[in-house]
Amino acid sequence: LWAAAFDASDWRTKPNAVVWPSSSADVAAVLKLANRHDFAVTVRGAGTGLVGSAIPVRSGVVLDMSRMNQILAVRVEDRYVVVQPGVIYRDLDRVLEPLGFAFPPDPASGPACTLGGNVATNAGGIRGAKYGVTRDYLLGLEVVLPRGDVIRTGCRTMKSVSGVPLAGLFCGSEGVLGVITEITLKISPRPKAKSTGLVLFRRLEDAGEAIGRITRAGIIPAVMEMMDKATIDMLIESGGFDLPRVEAFLVMETDGFTSTEAAAQMEAIIDICRDAGALEVKMAESPKQAADLWQARRSIGPVSIKHWPVGLVEDVTVPMSQIPDLLKGVREIAAHNQLDIINFGHCGDGNLHPQIMFDPAEDGIDARVERAASEIFQLACRLGGTLSGEHGIGLSKAGFLKFEHQPEELELMRELKGLFDPNNILNPGKMGLEAPS
Amino acid sequence: LWAAAFDASDWRTKPNAVVWPSSSADVAAVLKLANRHDFAVTVRGAGTGLVGSAIPVRSGVVLDMSRMNQILAVRVEDRYVVVQPGVIYRDLDRVLEPLGFAFPPDPASGPACTLGGNVATNAGGIRGAKYGVTRDYLLGLEVVLPRGDVIRTGCRTMKSVSGVPLAGLFCGSEGVLGVITEITLKISPRPKAKSTGLVLFRRLEDAGEAIGRITRAGIIPAVMEMMDKATIDMLIESGGFDLPRVEAFLVMETDGFTSTEAAAQMEAIIDICRDAGALEVKMAESPKQAADLWQARRSIGPVSIKHWPVGLVEDVTVPMSQIPDLLKGVREIAAHNQLDIINFGHCGDGNLHPQIMFDPAEDGIDARVERAASEIFQLACRLGGTLSGEHGIGLSKAGFLKFEHQPEELELMRELKGLFDPNNILNPGKMGLEAPS
Repeated sequence: LWAAAFDASDWRTKPNAVVWPSSSADVAAVLKLANRHDFAVTVRGAGTGLVGSAIPVRSGVVLDMSRMNQILAVRVEDRYVVVQPGVIYRDLDRVLEPLGFAFPPDPASGPACTLGGNVATNAGGIRGAKYGVTRDYLLGLEVVLPRGDVIRTGCRTMKSVSGVPLAGLFCGSEGVLGVITEITLKISPRPKAKSTGLVLFRRLEDAGEAIGRITRAGIIPAVMEMMDKATIDMLIESGGFDLPRVEAFLVMETDGFTSTEAAAQMEAIIDICRDAGALEVKMAESPKQAADLWQARRSIGPVSIKHWPVGLVEDVTVPMSQIPDLLKGVREIAAHNQLDIINFGHCGDGNLHPQIMFDPAEDGIDARVERAASEIFQLACRLGGTLSGEHGIGLSKAGFLKFEHQPEELELMRELKGLFDPNNILNPGKMGLEAPS
Repeated sequence: LWAAAFDASDWRTKPNAVVWPSSSADVAAVLKLANRHDFAVTVRGAGTGLVGSAIPVRSGVVLDMSRMNQILAVRVEDRYVVVQPGVIYRDLDRVLEPLGFAFPPDPASGPACTLGGNVATNAGGIRGAKYGVTRDYLLGLEVVLPRGDVIRTGCRTMKSVSGVPLAGLFCGSEGVLGVITEITLKISPRPKAKSTGLVLFRRLEDAGEAIGRITRAGIIPAVMEMMDKATIDMLIESGGFDLPRVEAFLVMETDGFTSTEAAAQMEAIIDICRDAGALEVKMAESPKQAADLWQARRSIGPVSIKHWPVGLVEDVTVPMSQIPDLLKGVREIAAHNQLDIINFGHCGDGNLHPQIMFDPAEDGIDARVERAASEIFQLACRLGGTLSGEHGIGLSKAGFLKFEHQPEELELMRELKGLFDPNNILNPGKMGLEAPS
């Protein structure tokens, strides 16, 4: 029961029971019982979520989907796979890689997370700017509705417009509308060639200008990861990195069917960055060099936990032109709340991860962290952005929905929840769906 | 009133009034009146739909959105545009082209259709296999709900997971759930280089084999249009085309940032097609030659109406590996119903357009056409396909939904309609949403 009380957030509640279904009929039986006897049911994939969506806040039953882990069909010629929700992202990737194909959204939790969770949270990853998110690959679903009916919706074709489009409603709604029991995903060819580059900017504004010019030039890098000054300073102070004290550090990857395609895009990017005032530009000449260029970006997690006991990672997303203003704003929020906040993320799609670093033993820290988080959310929304690019709402951000959504929209979300789940038995207490309008 | 009685289908019903709203407040006022006085409201874009979705079957008021035709924002650096629903597809394209960008789904009705209609029908086009459909570019919407509330949903960022995802529900539901009054669309760079090729196959099976091998080789052509034997025979008999009597004719386009990328993909395609037994292969050496290769495909419409007074165009979609079986099945359906059916379409995404050609003056023709259409739908669904890849359900295909969807799914669609529109005033009588479960 304790193992089902956690996810990767700091929320925890022990359920009364854990059930490992092996079919949609098992799931339907549990949901029918829940309606009859009024207990909560919360669905759990691998528990890698960061906002508490899988926490059984009302106890009751946790449906652990890990035993429904079969890959049911791999149809390369038809560009789809059919999987059960408990299949781990990497396990599918291991089957697709030798075929030259991929399910492109690659969440950082890929080695552990399940595809059911990916669909329920509309998972993203570092390739979102070019390759999109889970929803862009969702073709069809089998879902057990909260009242126990099993529906199949969507298609196994590349496109379909046949009736009210229901499948998308379950993608990103964090398990509050139904239990996903089968998934049909579109797959795409893996790019055959890649090019990797690194660019350092002394001034944040120059990096912002370069990002805008790259887009205007018609180049969408497969990856464009950024670190801000606070992150770079942290890496320098850790002693393991020989980096200049700059305001922005970008690692980029372009790709294509041919190496000419990947290299031509990277060369154009490098010209633009030089012209925008880049301090230093490096292009990887080999896969080994590319791995070296990635080293600093990959080290943020391990290095940060040596500096601070706890890091609260957010994932606000803004229009790309607003990235410099977001980073400057977060710097001010850090200063006036006397907090360390490091910023990194996927600047090709505007998805930044401000990470508030602190020692929970410090006096009065909780209030300061909470205020800083709230200020970051308000700033992102003011800049035309969203509370979450890929982590979701769950328990952690329910209180902030009002910064982004008007009451009429929140009310419609609640009405939908009421239609699907009149007794509020499925994943209750999440996403602010119980708050009065 | 007669002008609002038609769309591009053969359905027609005169409304009692036409209203040209200029704001969401106007739309809300009409919908509130409709609920109070119990009249039907049907939304109309450019009336280019092929299945009757814009026909006011219960008369009442037609909301003609053509005066809400402003492009409100073009943000290339942020990869989005904001438009009113009455903006014509081509008018947006004319603004984006000089910027090197596009809203990629390009329906054949692009010169006339409106973006509101594109969203309401989740419009596709010939580039769907590589560039997807309207839903893949829909970021945010302002919608007036049937009861008159105005909501904003979605985002202006490349990704967002914030609450129950509502925007997608309006994309493809053909105006039965709400009236779209503002649209935020993602835009993408136009490819800078293209390569065009033409391939003829004596045997349909060889074409099917080649299509499968192209996908397995990791190549997704931007365009892969196909014509079958009946279509080719028609073009030959029209006298204007010097074509061999083959079973499959493919026109393909590859693209990229560099001409090397476009050419390398086309060369790989050509090698595969030769190896699979292609009779003839041509690669365009210039834009003029590319236009020549397209000539036959473009002539299908004009030539067919010289042969037969009426053509009923369907758009079933199947997994790509099933295209040969679909075409063979349609040939048998044509034979035993004594009908001419020509087949062409987007075989990169499995979306074929069987077109039943006939003279409506012929005795007993209606029953034979209707039977053939029904048999085509059943065949497509049996092959794992869908009733419609891009035209929708509307009035024309409502009776066939049962071939594709199980009762539990149809019931959920009806419940959603009931939640959004309890008095059934918005676009009533469409998509089979009134049928008993």
